Amino acid sequence: MKSVNLMEKKTMTEKTTEKITTEVKEEKRTDENVIYVGHKPPMSYVLAVVTQFNTSGSDEVVIKARGRSISTAVDTAEITRNRFITDAKIKDIKIGTESITNEEGRTSNVSSIEIILTTKKKNKQVEQ
Amino acid sequence: MKSVNLMEKKTMTEKTTEKITTEVKEEKRTDENVIYVGHKPPMSYVLAVVTQFNTSGSDEVVIKARGRSISTAVDTAEITRNRFITDAKIKDIKIGTESITNEEGRTSNVSSIEIILTTKKKNKQVEQ
Repeated sequence: MKSVNLMEKKTMTEKTTEKITTEVKEEKRTDENVIYVGHKPPMSYVLAVVTQFNTSGSDEVVIKARGRSISTAVDTAEITRNRFITDAKIKDIKIGTESITNEEGRTSNVSSIEIILTTKKKNKQVEQ
Repeated sequence: MKSVNLMEKKTMTEKTTEKITTEVKEEKRTDENVIYVGHKPPMSYVLAVVTQFNTSGSDEVVIKARGRSISTAVDTAEITRNRFITDAKIKDIKIGTESITNEEGRTSNVSSIEIILTTKKKNKQVEQ
């Protein structure tokens, strides 16, 4: 039994380290626990969020998106919460507006969203 | 004396009719103050939200959307808040998943958003 467990562990760790290197490179911009959602299918970002929760031991992951990707960000949060990390709660959702300057020097406004997922056990006072 | 009583009666009846109308308004609220966002440009929905605030005297408007329209819903809330009703605050944002059955009988999940805008003067502690 022990040897089997060890083998399993070994393969598990190997897999996870691989994931870390690929995902962190892509997503590590300002903060480690921020996932920026773009134009890929939602499942790519779900994988990134799940990896963030599981490997780096974060109890909080922030999903950020702008413009059309906002709906993908919501999909990402919902898929993560419903299928993969069922004890994750939505701590907060913020929306805002960012000004973007394009190559011609024109500024345009774009909406943004920030979804904060947490697996933290909340204050017991609140749970009552 | 009689004339005074009559006067009082008159004002009483006026008051009661007023109450009735306000009660009816409040009952209707649940449907009337919801703006469903679809595939039109955001400004169409901004107009609907602004109209809702100004004409029907609502101090709360709910913006709802599903799937790809979620980003338009965020645009609608942000444009309303930044350009038209600057004292409107975001009271709450909820996200969720809805199952939709298509013509072939297959069910698919779609993300949804609900943005609650309010012009209510809240606790002054919160207002920065």
